[in-house]
Amino acid sequence: MPDLAPHRTLDWIGGLDGHIEMIDQTLLPGQFKVIACHDVETLWEAIKVLRVRGAPAIGVAAAMGAVLGIRDATTYEDLYARLERVCDYLASSRPTAVNLFWALDRMKRRAQTLQGRPLADIKESLLAEARAVRDEDAAMCRAIGDAGQHLIADGAGVLTHCNAGGLATAEYGTALALMYRAHELGRRFRVYADETRPLLQGSRLTAWELSRAGMDVTVICDNMAGLLMAQGKINLVITGADRIAATGDSANKIGTYSLAVLAKAHGIPFYIAAPSSTFDLSIDDGSAIPIEIRDENEIRRGPGGLTAPEGVNCYNPAFDVTPAELIHGIITERGLIQPVTREQVRTVIGR
Amino acid sequence: MPDLAPHRTLDWIGGLDGHIEMIDQTLLPGQFKVIACHDVETLWEAIKVLRVRGAPAIGVAAAMGAVLGIRDATTYEDLYARLERVCDYLASSRPTAVNLFWALDRMKRRAQTLQGRPLADIKESLLAEARAVRDEDAAMCRAIGDAGQHLIADGAGVLTHCNAGGLATAEYGTALALMYRAHELGRRFRVYADETRPLLQGSRLTAWELSRAGMDVTVICDNMAGLLMAQGKINLVITGADRIAATGDSANKIGTYSLAVLAKAHGIPFYIAAPSSTFDLSIDDGSAIPIEIRDENEIRRGPGGLTAPEGVNCYNPAFDVTPAELIHGIITERGLIQPVTREQVRTVIGR
Repeated sequence: MPDLAPHRTLDWIGGLDGHIEMIDQTLLPGQFKVIACHDVETLWEAIKVLRVRGAPAIGVAAAMGAVLGIRDATTYEDLYARLERVCDYLASSRPTAVNLFWALDRMKRRAQTLQGRPLADIKESLLAEARAVRDEDAAMCRAIGDAGQHLIADGAGVLTHCNAGGLATAEYGTALALMYRAHELGRRFRVYADETRPLLQGSRLTAWELSRAGMDVTVICDNMAGLLMAQGKINLVITGADRIAATGDSANKIGTYSLAVLAKAHGIPFYIAAPSSTFDLSIDDGSAIPIEIRDENEIRRGPGGLTAPEGVNCYNPAFDVTPAELIHGIITERGLIQPVTREQVRTVIGR
Repeated sequence: MPDLAPHRTLDWIGGLDGHIEMIDQTLLPGQFKVIACHDVETLWEAIKVLRVRGAPAIGVAAAMGAVLGIRDATTYEDLYARLERVCDYLASSRPTAVNLFWALDRMKRRAQTLQGRPLADIKESLLAEARAVRDEDAAMCRAIGDAGQHLIADGAGVLTHCNAGGLATAEYGTALALMYRAHELGRRFRVYADETRPLLQGSRLTAWELSRAGMDVTVICDNMAGLLMAQGKINLVITGADRIAATGDSANKIGTYSLAVLAKAHGIPFYIAAPSSTFDLSIDDGSAIPIEIRDENEIRRGPGGLTAPEGVNCYNPAFDVTPAELIHGIITERGLIQPVTREQVRTVIGR
């Protein structure tokens, strides 16, 4: 039986002789398994192969990993040498993860302030620092939830994209923090989770964690959002963000922009939830944010297996209706219907 | 070696003692295989398991199947009895396919007009009728192509959804007919094919047939269309339709409506291409068209294997940028940024 508390993505279990436990996210949604990391090598592999993912969660894992690396040190020199080594080693697990470097730097800075203290004190203080990284992340997510929970009314339909949830953070998440908080406050509402192609973070992770929390969640394919908005099923769209420019222009998982355009066309409010660390005020506006182009095979090779939890609802409309006012023309073997009006249809197609 | 001509989805090969050949669409995009149907049972199975699919193509297959069913008749009575039997049998392969019933009725009506003619004449005339069903479908598709090809300018980027292509008809298709015709006229342009979740007709079929014809096609996930429009990559959106009301309101594969809203927001023309038989003037407007809700497992179970042809380009941007003007508010642990302006960002986040 794991010791990991129900809402947590990863945590340090026990004292200085303890270990890290984390949900193995590579097995979701088919299997829920908590794994233990007793050594740095196991943790490095877990970060590398995305058993733990999401910038804040990786930062927490790295801070705790530093403790795994130094706890057996026998002298001061040994401890500081081990700290350098473990930080270099963990930094190599995901070389582009900014939160990883940030957390490791924080651990090293803390170690510097502890110089001259008894060896046992230093070790305990570094464990406390790693736990603080986790606790601060959790507190920040809760603060986001508190700041935004009022947006989710009783009976609302809320659409989200990708996974800006507890699984990407120590617990609770960013966009999903609002939903967890509103749920705790007793409000009843339905969440629609875009599956989020190509990597399906919405159907695999968001649907899993919300249903685990006992919430009402339904998976849709990304191309269904417009229909649901037209049907009046969506009252609010809320997503996370990866990077926000000084103007507020927000980079987030592919498909977010389409949702924002669709929301505006239907008069539905579209919100972003993100910690202040997501803002990069050195970026003047969104046009300066580079877009990562990823491997074509993510699209070309089907995922196989379960793409959403077995027990979670999926809504699968096969068609939608496009109103004539959005259609520039209809091309038929009898010629072009343009403009698309009842009269023109009758003229070209007849009765 | 199959005898099927390169652009054809299915055809009757040889004389009255001949057979049907068709592309086995269940093997696409991984494998291109033409199968032969020498008897009615093989054809029934092919329609049933979607080796041939698309309303017009199924109609052609059924008409030709009627010939397979009657060609060995030895007397008038035998022929008309066999015709009834084969039509009932083929109609049971896909009980909701309107074109299937239409084609079988047409064959029976033709047989009635032939009563009293020599047995060999009746058989030959029914084969000619089945071929006419195919030829008329091909001619109609070509007429749609001719009517709309001028919309595709040299250098254009054209977005399409699902498969309104040759594979759904005898050849050439509806939305794709414009592209084939513009290509024949020597125009160079790029087609973007939405993969079209959940069943991936865009990546599996549209990308396959356009690349087979030597055209420039790139697969995207459905949620990427908005980004491509914002990037200026799309000049025209064109899709097929399943049913069109008297107003011109058009039902088509899920996701078409979202594309139309996105196209309007970006000032990009959105067209439908469809034969006049798609219009149902008894339906007053789109709100009266029922939406089929399909099996949740189409979303929940991943497709596995190749979802797009191995050699076809896929464009896989991981993120997009949502401009501040589309964002109602940004929720942070420091509170709400609303409206999302440079000033409010500075006030809440600081420098």
